[in-house]
Amino acid sequence: MLVPERPAGRFSDAWRRCVGAGRFDLALRSDYRDSLALVQQEIGFQYIRQHGLLSDGAGIYQPYTRGGSPGLAYTFTYVDQIVDAYLALGVRPFIELGFTPAALGSGPQTVFWWQGNVTPPASPAEWAALVRTTITHLIDRYGLDEVRTWPIEVWNEPDLDVFWPAGDQDDYHRLYELTACTVKDVDASLQVGGPALSPGADAEWLKRFSAFIEDRAVPIDFVSRHAYTSGPSQPVPFGTYQTLMPAATLLDQFAAPRQELAGTALAGLPVHITEFSSSYRPDNPIHDTAFHAAYLAPVVVAAGDLVDSFSYWTFSDVFEEAGVPASMFHGGFGLLTHRQIKKPTFHLYSFISRLGRDVLASGESFVVTRDPAGHIAILAWAPVDHTGRSFVDGHRVRLSVPVGPGSSAFIARSSVGEEAGNARAAWAAMGRPASPRPRQVDALREAAEPVRTYRSVPVAGGRVELDLVLGRHEVTLVEVSPVVDETPPWSDDARLFGRAG
Amino acid sequence: MLVPERPAGRFSDAWRRCVGAGRFDLALRSDYRDSLALVQQEIGFQYIRQHGLLSDGAGIYQPYTRGGSPGLAYTFTYVDQIVDAYLALGVRPFIELGFTPAALGSGPQTVFWWQGNVTPPASPAEWAALVRTTITHLIDRYGLDEVRTWPIEVWNEPDLDVFWPAGDQDDYHRLYELTACTVKDVDASLQVGGPALSPGADAEWLKRFSAFIEDRAVPIDFVSRHAYTSGPSQPVPFGTYQTLMPAATLLDQFAAPRQELAGTALAGLPVHITEFSSSYRPDNPIHDTAFHAAYLAPVVVAAGDLVDSFSYWTFSDVFEEAGVPASMFHGGFGLLTHRQIKKPTFHLYSFISRLGRDVLASGESFVVTRDPAGHIAILAWAPVDHTGRSFVDGHRVRLSVPVGPGSSAFIARSSVGEEAGNARAAWAAMGRPASPRPRQVDALREAAEPVRTYRSVPVAGGRVELDLVLGRHEVTLVEVSPVVDETPPWSDDARLFGRAG
Amino acid sequence: MLVPERPAGRFSDAWRRCVGAGRFDLALRSDYRDSLALVQQEIGFQYIRQHGLLSDGAGIYQPYTRGGSPGLAYTFTYVDQIVDAYLALGVRPFIELGFTPAALGSGPQTVFWWQGNVTPPASPAEWAALVRTTITHLIDRYGLDEVRTWPIEVWNEPDLDVFWPAGDQDDYHRLYELTACTVKDVDASLQVGGPALSPGADAEWLKRFSAFIEDRAVPIDFVSRHAYTSGPSQPVPFGTYQTLMPAATLLDQFAAPRQELAGTALAGLPVHITEFSSSYRPDNPIHDTAFHAAYLAPVVVAAGDLVDSFSYWTFSDVFEEAGVPASMFHGGFGLLTHRQIKKPTFHLYSFISRLGRDVLASGESFVVTRDPAGHIAILAWAPVDHTGRSFVDGHRVRLSVPVGPGSSAFIARSSVGEEAGNARAAWAAMGRPASPRPRQVDALREAAEPVRTYRSVPVAGGRVELDLVLGRHEVTLVEVSPVVDETPPWSDDARLFGRAG
Amino acid sequence: MLVPERPAGRFSDAWRRCVGAGRFDLALRSDYRDSLALVQQEIGFQYIRQHGLLSDGAGIYQPYTRGGSPGLAYTFTYVDQIVDAYLALGVRPFIELGFTPAALGSGPQTVFWWQGNVTPPASPAEWAALVRTTITHLIDRYGLDEVRTWPIEVWNEPDLDVFWPAGDQDDYHRLYELTACTVKDVDASLQVGGPALSPGADAEWLKRFSAFIEDRAVPIDFVSRHAYTSGPSQPVPFGTYQTLMPAATLLDQFAAPRQELAGTALAGLPVHITEFSSSYRPDNPIHDTAFHAAYLAPVVVAAGDLVDSFSYWTFSDVFEEAGVPASMFHGGFGLLTHRQIKKPTFHLYSFISRLGRDVLASGESFVVTRDPAGHIAILAWAPVDHTGRSFVDGHRVRLSVPVGPGSSAFIARSSVGEEAGNARAAWAAMGRPASPRPRQVDALREAAEPVRTYRSVPVAGGRVELDLVLGRHEVTLVEVSPVVDETPPWSDDARLFGRAG
Repeated sequence: MLVPERPAGRFSDAWRRCVGAGRFDLALRSDYRDSLALVQQEIGFQYIRQHGLLSDGAGIYQPYTRGGSPGLAYTFTYVDQIVDAYLALGVRPFIELGFTPAALGSGPQTVFWWQGNVTPPASPAEWAALVRTTITHLIDRYGLDEVRTWPIEVWNEPDLDVFWPAGDQDDYHRLYELTACTVKDVDASLQVGGPALSPGADAEWLKRFSAFIEDRAVPIDFVSRHAYTSGPSQPVPFGTYQTLMPAATLLDQFAAPRQELAGTALAGLPVHITEFSSSYRPDNPIHDTAFHAAYLAPVVVAAGDLVDSFSYWTFSDVFEEAGVPASMFHGGFGLLTHRQIKKPTFHLYSFISRLGRDVLASGESFVVTRDPAGHIAILAWAPVDHTGRSFVDGHRVRLSVPVGPGSSAFIARSSVGEEAGNARAAWAAMGRPASPRPRQVDALREAAEPVRTYRSVPVAGGRVELDLVLGRHEVTLVEVSPVVDETPPWSDDARLFGRAG
Repeated sequence: MLVPERPAGRFSDAWRRCVGAGRFDLALRSDYRDSLALVQQEIGFQYIRQHGLLSDGAGIYQPYTRGGSPGLAYTFTYVDQIVDAYLALGVRPFIELGFTPAALGSGPQTVFWWQGNVTPPASPAEWAALVRTTITHLIDRYGLDEVRTWPIEVWNEPDLDVFWPAGDQDDYHRLYELTACTVKDVDASLQVGGPALSPGADAEWLKRFSAFIEDRAVPIDFVSRHAYTSGPSQPVPFGTYQTLMPAATLLDQFAAPRQELAGTALAGLPVHITEFSSSYRPDNPIHDTAFHAAYLAPVVVAAGDLVDSFSYWTFSDVFEEAGVPASMFHGGFGLLTHRQIKKPTFHLYSFISRLGRDVLASGESFVVTRDPAGHIAILAWAPVDHTGRSFVDGHRVRLSVPVGPGSSAFIARSSVGEEAGNARAAWAAMGRPASPRPRQVDALREAAEPVRTYRSVPVAGGRVELDLVLGRHEVTLVEVSPVVDETPPWSDDARLFGRAG
Repeated sequence: MLVPERPAGRFSDAWRRCVGAGRFDLALRSDYRDSLALVQQEIGFQYIRQHGLLSDGAGIYQPYTRGGSPGLAYTFTYVDQIVDAYLALGVRPFIELGFTPAALGSGPQTVFWWQGNVTPPASPAEWAALVRTTITHLIDRYGLDEVRTWPIEVWNEPDLDVFWPAGDQDDYHRLYELTACTVKDVDASLQVGGPALSPGADAEWLKRFSAFIEDRAVPIDFVSRHAYTSGPSQPVPFGTYQTLMPAATLLDQFAAPRQELAGTALAGLPVHITEFSSSYRPDNPIHDTAFHAAYLAPVVVAAGDLVDSFSYWTFSDVFEEAGVPASMFHGGFGLLTHRQIKKPTFHLYSFISRLGRDVLASGESFVVTRDPAGHIAILAWAPVDHTGRSFVDGHRVRLSVPVGPGSSAFIARSSVGEEAGNARAAWAAMGRPASPRPRQVDALREAAEPVRTYRSVPVAGGRVELDLVLGRHEVTLVEVSPVVDETPPWSDDARLFGRAG
Repeated sequence: MLVPERPAGRFSDAWRRCVGAGRFDLALRSDYRDSLALVQQEIGFQYIRQHGLLSDGAGIYQPYTRGGSPGLAYTFTYVDQIVDAYLALGVRPFIELGFTPAALGSGPQTVFWWQGNVTPPASPAEWAALVRTTITHLIDRYGLDEVRTWPIEVWNEPDLDVFWPAGDQDDYHRLYELTACTVKDVDASLQVGGPALSPGADAEWLKRFSAFIEDRAVPIDFVSRHAYTSGPSQPVPFGTYQTLMPAATLLDQFAAPRQELAGTALAGLPVHITEFSSSYRPDNPIHDTAFHAAYLAPVVVAAGDLVDSFSYWTFSDVFEEAGVPASMFHGGFGLLTHRQIKKPTFHLYSFISRLGRDVLASGESFVVTRDPAGHIAILAWAPVDHTGRSFVDGHRVRLSVPVGPGSSAFIARSSVGEEAGNARAAWAAMGRPASPRPRQVDALREAAEPVRTYRSVPVAGGRVELDLVLGRHEVTLVEVSPVVDETPPWSDDARLFGRAG
């Protein structure tokens, strides 16, 4: 392909807007913090979203008895420690208001190994007070200018029994209205939204929600939903296998809210995909594979044109929805495993973080970008078969790239795939140790790094010709810089061993 | 007092043998790790003991179902992360085997906010397998030479209903025998012991235990019990007040096991006090006070002559037995608060860690030590009234200390007390903010530092005369070093402003 | 004094605009870097100025011979390492163009132990090429937007024989013109200036310079000079004593350029004091004293109204103009000694860095400031006698400070003086060890910290009454914050020891 | 080759005994310290040797005048900072006593860009006092037990005019005798030796030295010399090309002292090769190449059987003997360039540091080792042509390696060579930037890493069959560990995409 010299458009950075994480109080963990620091250094997300801010582990809602009378304390010991740490790491909370403190729940039903109570609040007034106190506290500590940049989402996947067992859609509408009005009553400039629908929600759900919002003039600043591509669970101990749909169905899911809301009062609102991945299971080994990066590559590259954010679920395997993970590689959602081993999908994101501001060209398996200083960065990937029945090896991408004057260009190529940057494969070769020894962890850390090559290529007519061959499940970043040749005239590698005598 | 030149004996370092901590999986927390690193750097403990190794939060015991049949996996994901971190920080586990995984319990009773199941194992065989697998795993990973240095204690305070609700002493005997035999069957060189009695146990409990051990020739390598001095709880929300007994009663409690076991088969065994403090409540504000350091000073100085270890309960306020702490200063057990603010008792330990190898003299309110290089280090403290009804101010300690030849000595004095090194007092002056702002945390961190003074004193006859005056609840470290005067002859501070013209 | 509630004006931050340093290549040193990192963290300067960018140690100018013919290479190996490090530490170069590479000098004369050649360039064309190449390289690497914020000063103290031995003022004028025109020819938006006059220059020097500039329409963006208050040297080995003038004479020196240039073409230009201190000697022990901080306090507080910057000479004792320093405290210029022991003048700057944006009031020995969040910060100092013949002890500052509603305020006070924050005094008590042992360095580090006290005071009528008593040579920072009382009703320190039985 | 199961002998760790460095005071540099920390972490040398301890840059010898009379101060400001840093990094000084302080020299001759005075001391008494004071100071600070482990070498290459311009061999003998006797007079347990001969010394030099020692019964604890293989210099600006001799001539040079001293009084002494490399020039690009690692591999593997130490000259390019290096890759001696880019020879050492305690087998191009835990580590290298006229590609090493029971082994292979781990090649492709931009430095850092591959291989009869193919100038580390297969029975990668529907 003859890559044009003029940009076709901007490369959206919606991909970095948000990333998901395990429950709120897991942010107190050392591994979580180290992982987030690494992710921020090499990728750099802007917001982080997670469940459980209002659940018991975070400890906000603390009833007590004194002199026989009940009292209530709001405690921000952990919340402040966590949000302080986020801001120090350059990431902000994308607040999810949920779930219910056990003492405020209307029933005993819980979700997850960590037992988040998901019943509707027994007392709307106490819920509203909890929301108001929490948001007010955050503003007092961090300032309104800061907090008004944090989206506030009401609950999680209320269309699913597992998250909203005792209620129905109308109950969610009431919860949403109460919560949104409470938030706006604290300050009208705060951003509130929902409903964080699951991918399984039928198309009418959102329309009914929109009608409700419009009827009652309820505040709303954004619409949110989730997207996954996996089929029914095929459980094994500590794991799940599932079929997958083509990756492009993710883009369809991303696009759905705008389509469903066309013509409604919510039509113009920002749309946030507050969770997405292939499988929605925290124990599906597909997350750990090289396939996964190649599968998601075209989605992450293209989705910024469809939505305002799409939040990869999640940045780290420090995550306990299914209990304490039984093995280093256990199919967790994370970009990183425990102890911060990078998975191939981590590199997909780190590669994308090095793309330039402008898109020069894009195709089925590549995108070519340029930054204002003239550096070219290309992401390319091998097409994948979502059924795993066949695979592509030796996929070729031929590009004629404009690099300007000069006689040569420096090419740096970084790749992950089945053969390189694939810690899971090294771990399998080790015998799949559940809890690797320190020297094994060191080897996994090294095995997780991309393979990198460097070379000089000639420039002809202001262009370099690239013929990229991609291995199975390969995702590759190719960076092209014009060479400024500083070689002095006396430098001569032919003389390295001395002139002949 | 004329301090003699010849040592009266060695200063025991039993005080640094062990320290307590919150439940096992809290060691995954960032604040816990940072706190432990600080404690190790400025104090340096050798072992660390905590509850919950076998409880669900640490995740070892994981039953599953496959094809309709039950299975069981042992998972060391978290255990390995934690023990790896301990060894990297220079501290080793003092293993407490407890409590029961919920799925292995014989009933639903739990202890603490974090709901540790404390019922006897439903299956002795499965308990033995759990113990065997855990110890074997540790040996595989860390080596037998390492693990045989780790004491292994069976259960915690089995004389109390709260920790052993369904059982009686005979039940504990059976658990002890099964566990100890299992440990020794893994390797006979491992150290096993118990019974980690509470201070409230009657004197006959230990004798019955001893008789049982002797009768059945059960393995035992050490005897353990706990010691506290507080009276009945006077609860308030998120806190407890209590009367205290004199600190010397701690020494009586430390001495009790040897007295009670005199003449029995267990008479010669090492005795470990595996928990001690004033109050046994994690929410008694006395722990945070300057009083507390002065109260415990004579105990920590003297106890090394009575027992093989006495483990301060605990090094950090990262501790959730009563829930998520509702305030920065909440009466937690820790030497450090959340976010690592040093309490006065932290400094008691850091001062003691700077004492020398040999004791030259000691008294009611001081000890004088010397290290092989000749540096003198003195710990002194103001006597306290455990009822708080009166207090000592201006307590004097007069010492004539041998420092050898030379004409002057350099004195460095570090003190904490009501007036200095008292972060709780600064926090009270701030209005007791539950979750201090960053600049308040900075101020608390500074307020927590000892006041330090430096001066030169004359040496006469190889001695310096010290007249130490101690304020209320003061604990002070005085370090004395002979001065080697390197002042050149032309140095003259009288000339600092130039000679007169 | 009744401090008014409305600001009297802004507190200028010209004090932080620039700081001095040892010769350019000393910035490769580890101690220098650690010191700069500490200074940036606790104070935060914006620019750094030093000699020797073009001298041989920095290695830019490298003549060579090839095939019998001379050639010339410009090498930025060290320059880039240093400037990279500066920008990473948040500080920018205030470029001083000097001195002459030895191979470009017109003679052998050097200045300092490190032998900087200070003769006029033998070839004006080569000098211009050196300047052009250096500035162009910096722009290529750091960008024009960055480099145009860096002032570029031509030479250093050309009125002194020691720095300009072979020339006279006209020679400097020619050097200035050549250099300034060369810089502007690279880019007209760059800032160039001079003449970095010594304090001893007569008042006519600057007028002649101004006339020359005007006559020939030479570019100039700022005027610079230096200021010191010390009298003739009274040398001793490795040291110098000197008389001092009153500190206020520094303010006179700062004000002089504007006065001397009034009515000339240079009248409106920014004025930078590119070096100031008491003594101009790198071995006068006055720099290390508590006196020094109190002496300079009124200067640093007031000078921002007179000039655009005044650069303390220097931030660190890593400085070799008089050779390798023979002792830890040797009268170096630094805010920090070798190994980063803080001198009292360091704290003067760190205290000032905590003052607020607005000045509420000021007096002979204090300034009261407030930041937008309402925190009050007061700097006060004991007046000093510059002859050292008398001293002030117990100086009182009484202030009635507005803090707004509330019933109490939190006061944090930090002080240095003869008794506290005085590492030199502790070092003297140690016997003035030339190269202290590690444990002595630790003690010095602690001795260098300010004494800090914390208390709560009542607020009456929206004000707190402060009666500050200052010891000899004390400089003190008092921070006042309104208390938000969060004490719960059940909190009662009277119950700490339990209710009476 | 059928590698035997029983060790053929121990693998000597003489290779890690010592490493060389630039002049003493360069150890104050930040880049030097960071480089040493990296080298210690990934390789771990025991001693470090360098010139210039007594030269002016280190600042020990400081004459002064007072009241018209001369005086002399010894200053250890820098020495202590440097040695403190070494010990903190786990490395000890191999002391070289040299050169002469300028003020103590008998003439003006200097060596190197940094102008070390190399004339014999004008006053033997002052030289002896300097040596005595320096050694005594080190003992006072670090303890005799420590300092007696530090070899003390007298001067450097006294057989060369450039280092010993005014003297002859007899003069050196006198210097040696005076110095050695002075050292032994401080403490007889100190180790002193010499003569640090250059490779060009004729065979009689050492015999004459030995005769002198024997005649006068001068103390000596070790013999030292240097070894290089390069031919005459072919200078270009900022660089030198040279022919090379075969690497095996290094082993001949290492062996020479024992041969030459056979039958003399010095016959049984330890022999230290206190400098070795290919070229003795700090600007020969051969040092930076992949060739260099392969060239030296057989030397570093074999030399431990010949001598007690052989010190690679040097660990870092922070080195100024030929001035400020004009380019990132300039042919410096270092294992690391400026800014710590790893050269291939760095990896040769890091690979060797991972070899096991016992040698199982060795050959022309490999060595097979095993550690006590049973891990096999193999170093192999492609044979090289020292004339560069031909090269080996596809060199094969076939090994049948014993790994014990089990059905598979995990193989980790790390390689550097022309294609990988070759930062100089990447730099050449960039256009040889003299001072690379930050993003280029990042790319160089990545390009400097070895390529690493991981796989599982079958074990048959307790052995794995390795068929290693080595590219041009490749050096490779192959680590073989038996696999303990923990794969659970339900794990099945064939199910990754879900069962067929």
